[in-house]
Amino acid sequence: MRYFEDFKPGESVQLGSHTITRDEIIAFGRQFDPQPFHVDEEAARATIFGGLIASGWHTGSLIMRLFCDGVIGDTASLGSPGIDEMRWLKPVRPGDTLSLRMTVTDCVPSRSKPDRGIIRTLLELSNQRGEVVVSIKGMNLIRRRPA
Amino acid sequence: MRYFEDFKPGESVQLGSHTITRDEIIAFGRQFDPQPFHVDEEAARATIFGGLIASGWHTGSLIMRLFCDGVIGDTASLGSPGIDEMRWLKPVRPGDTLSLRMTVTDCVPSRSKPDRGIIRTLLELSNQRGEVVVSIKGMNLIRRRPA
Repeated sequence: MRYFEDFKPGESVQLGSHTITRDEIIAFGRQFDPQPFHVDEEAARATIFGGLIASGWHTGSLIMRLFCDGVIGDTASLGSPGIDEMRWLKPVRPGDTLSLRMTVTDCVPSRSKPDRGIIRTLLELSNQRGEVVVSIKGMNLIRRRPA
Repeated sequence: MRYFEDFKPGESVQLGSHTITRDEIIAFGRQFDPQPFHVDEEAARATIFGGLIASGWHTGSLIMRLFCDGVIGDTASLGSPGIDEMRWLKPVRPGDTLSLRMTVTDCVPSRSKPDRGIIRTLLELSNQRGEVVVSIKGMNLIRRRPA
């Protein structure tokens, strides 16, 4: 189990990857973001994207999954107050293999609650060509190691 | 069809609502955010949240759906470069009825591309008690009205 003290600014690690399918893109789009370029292959061809692309909420959620599997699932996490920024930098298309890098940017003990601290991270999702497609500046509340 | 010129700073409108179920929370959690408080009712009781809560990526995606149904689906949208902030302010629990308010905060024509502009919005998701549970500072690229 990882605690607040186990995170250090400057730590940068490669986490897992996921290959996104056409069916996943369409299923997510139908549920949460039914714009033509997320749900309809043919209509998508006529848009500025020239074809089907994943919703940015889908790729953000995939970042959460890879972050969960690689870090948070084995960390004394107390949830998150939010994120400071998310950038959708490049389109994500069916068949793209997406891999996540986490860089720890800041670790601050809580002033009001001595049992926890906040870590800030830069989460970068890259495709198989090494292009960063989505970036997130995240925050997580993490329990301090019990004395 | 709504164009860039149809958005004005200060516009604030109530959009649709959605009642979130236990099964939706668990299904989303299993796929994208399998922390105990998102996927396991019994384990969730022992956490600081005292029960099952929706993933913040789930509620963010629900905001997108309500925003899509209420605004973007009938707007000449060219996608989005990202969001500037998302805050998970209160837990969202099974049975909560979530409704969205959009407030337009800024409308700026593009300097480099005369066919579009960028609108900035504050998206606030509230529960049935009127408490804001999630807020997002969003951006959208919108086509200008054809001459």
